[in-house]
Amino acid sequence: MSSYVTEIGKRAAAAKSSLANASSAEKDKALRLIAKALVENMDTILKANETDIEAAKANGMSESLIDRLKLTPDRIKGIADAVLEITNLPDPVGKVLSGSARPNGLRITKVSVPLGVIAVIYEARPNVTADAAALCLKSGNAVILRGGKEAINSNSAIVKVMRSSLESTDISPDCICFIEDTKRETATELMKLNEYVDVLIPRGGAGLIKSVVENSTVPVIETGTGNCHIYVDKSADIDMAAEIVFNAKTSRPSVCNAAEKLLLHKDIAEIALIAIKNKLDEKKVEIRGDELVSAIIPDVVPVTEEDWGTEYLDYIIAVKIVEDIDEAINHINTYGTKHSEAIITESFAAAEKFSAEVDAAAVYVNASTRFTDGGEFGFGAEIGISTQKLHARGPVGLPELTSYKYVIRGDGQIR
Amino acid sequence: MSSYVTEIGKRAAAAKSSLANASSAEKDKALRLIAKALVENMDTILKANETDIEAAKANGMSESLIDRLKLTPDRIKGIADAVLEITNLPDPVGKVLSGSARPNGLRITKVSVPLGVIAVIYEARPNVTADAAALCLKSGNAVILRGGKEAINSNSAIVKVMRSSLESTDISPDCICFIEDTKRETATELMKLNEYVDVLIPRGGAGLIKSVVENSTVPVIETGTGNCHIYVDKSADIDMAAEIVFNAKTSRPSVCNAAEKLLLHKDIAEIALIAIKNKLDEKKVEIRGDELVSAIIPDVVPVTEEDWGTEYLDYIIAVKIVEDIDEAINHINTYGTKHSEAIITESFAAAEKFSAEVDAAAVYVNASTRFTDGGEFGFGAEIGISTQKLHARGPVGLPELTSYKYVIRGDGQIR
Repeated sequence: MSSYVTEIGKRAAAAKSSLANASSAEKDKALRLIAKALVENMDTILKANETDIEAAKANGMSESLIDRLKLTPDRIKGIADAVLEITNLPDPVGKVLSGSARPNGLRITKVSVPLGVIAVIYEARPNVTADAAALCLKSGNAVILRGGKEAINSNSAIVKVMRSSLESTDISPDCICFIEDTKRETATELMKLNEYVDVLIPRGGAGLIKSVVENSTVPVIETGTGNCHIYVDKSADIDMAAEIVFNAKTSRPSVCNAAEKLLLHKDIAEIALIAIKNKLDEKKVEIRGDELVSAIIPDVVPVTEEDWGTEYLDYIIAVKIVEDIDEAINHINTYGTKHSEAIITESFAAAEKFSAEVDAAAVYVNASTRFTDGGEFGFGAEIGISTQKLHARGPVGLPELTSYKYVIRGDGQIR
Repeated sequence: MSSYVTEIGKRAAAAKSSLANASSAEKDKALRLIAKALVENMDTILKANETDIEAAKANGMSESLIDRLKLTPDRIKGIADAVLEITNLPDPVGKVLSGSARPNGLRITKVSVPLGVIAVIYEARPNVTADAAALCLKSGNAVILRGGKEAINSNSAIVKVMRSSLESTDISPDCICFIEDTKRETATELMKLNEYVDVLIPRGGAGLIKSVVENSTVPVIETGTGNCHIYVDKSADIDMAAEIVFNAKTSRPSVCNAAEKLLLHKDIAEIALIAIKNKLDEKKVEIRGDELVSAIIPDVVPVTEEDWGTEYLDYIIAVKIVEDIDEAINHINTYGTKHSEAIITESFAAAEKFSAEVDAAAVYVNASTRFTDGGEFGFGAEIGISTQKLHARGPVGLPELTSYKYVIRGDGQIR
């Protein structure tokens, strides 16, 4: 294992207690200093970003990816504002979660504590650098950031600003560590750094997440992939179904809570499909389906088995006509990524059944899947949407970035 | 991957919804049937156990391990009683954990749900077979049991009885699956069965747990190893310290919450060490230490660096004299396994500092580490003590065997 990644792990682990034991006031002071410094050092950050953009252009990166990479004065102000907003969220550390007095006089208290050191592996967008660092800081966790090579100069400049800001606080600058070396091996090494890293959070596409799940010996919070379905039940309000499908598919197709699949009960398939297609045509959404679907609407792209498991992140939707709600639930539980799933129905029994039996972080009745988001749930900022069942499911906000310990006070009890 | 393990995974996954959606009444009925059948089929189970005991003797297994493997009519009744007791615990599934109405009218409810399929890999003791299956059943999880080869006949007999009991319920017998093949590969395959297994829980020694952490791509709840310390502060009540150390070391040395290390503040080291040694001599506990320790008490076995990281599970304790509480906390955070750690002190400040800064599942002030146990904490039966920070820390009881989902009800909301 390279001494470089290990060395960074060691530094973060050595620094973590300065943050774990910091007061809320001290952590919020640090966040305010970081927000201020990001704006004050805007020129340096923009210059570094310029280098990344030039390299990206030289490497033929697509326009849409370059746009995600690009920073502007407004975007940097947005990043600083997001950091500042985290000071308004309650401190998730030190919360007494439960407790009791035992018959033998022991007093047991369950208290929330930071996880320790969190490693975040992410891809192109440089705003993740500040977002992730700020969330980890507020939740008392040292962070090791390992971004993509496309944003290396931008990320490095942002980290330098954040680390300098910590110098005038009681929190060690090593609570925000950054891996400058973007070779693939540094990510793999981070995944095995159990001695120093408590939790690993990948933020990125299906490829990154798969690699982390397969290679990491450090516990992982899996985030991000959303192959989300909308099932239109036989009792659905068809107008509502069309509005919701249109919103869930087209309001922002590139995000994980966008709908990718449409399941239609056979009894309403024809009327619903025509109404939904009318809406989707406004945004030129490509519809994929089998013969049953093409019998209702022509010009359907033939669907393949592979489609059912694919997250398009694009103006594409695959449609399946099902016999009944059981087939719909079974299809979702087979092909879904356990992210966000919706039913459109006027039937109480169907709503109850779907909510109970669909296995996903968020199950919607008569609403768009696009609401799966820390802000929309009223939790504030999040580091991602977890699609696993262990520890955190759905939006991963500040409380999900903590663990707990039991503190037991006695006066000499033995067993 | 062998079709055998995959086939079992597939069966458990196909069966899980019959259990996930079962009512508390149905699950408790199944547990009562299992408890009754275990007693009724005592002869068959004892006969199978006899075969295991004979093989163990032929293989030269130690007396103490044979004792852990051995079943008697009383022990089987004990196992059945433990299953029955789980019916008295509240159902952890379907609990509304929190919820809110959002400004747009969406109603969000966070509800506890089963994890899905839990795989339990364990070693020699056949009682784990019934314990683990009963806890998983009550928490709505299908279970795949993979025990050690020493207990294969006993485990197989117990599983047969449990599966038959499920036949007269609405819960599929495949909710309790058993891997008959005890080749090492079947365990390794189970660790990679992400498609069907949601969580893996190893129950056993450090070797098993290390292998699971290194090889498993399935999320793991790490349990069991406890290199527990007792720090006697300069302000300690020395009599209390001696009683607690004696209890924590000798009441049951083979368990994970037994004390393995003793740290003494230099100001009270001499008087404390003499008092504690007097007690420990009653059980002929071997004391290991350096020259500072042997200067106070003769006949000390020299301590090595390796000792500090070792869980003895025996009548052995290593002693270190420290400069101050900071050195004690630092030593514990360096060598401990984050299980159970204790301070003996009359100082409020020392108690607060130790509780805050020691990184462990359970931190004790003036009490024995032996209390880290689901029953002692008032939680009821547990499947183990987690030493990780993700998902569950400390006793893993029924609530820790669940996840949650968000159910969001609306009337056409779009974003």
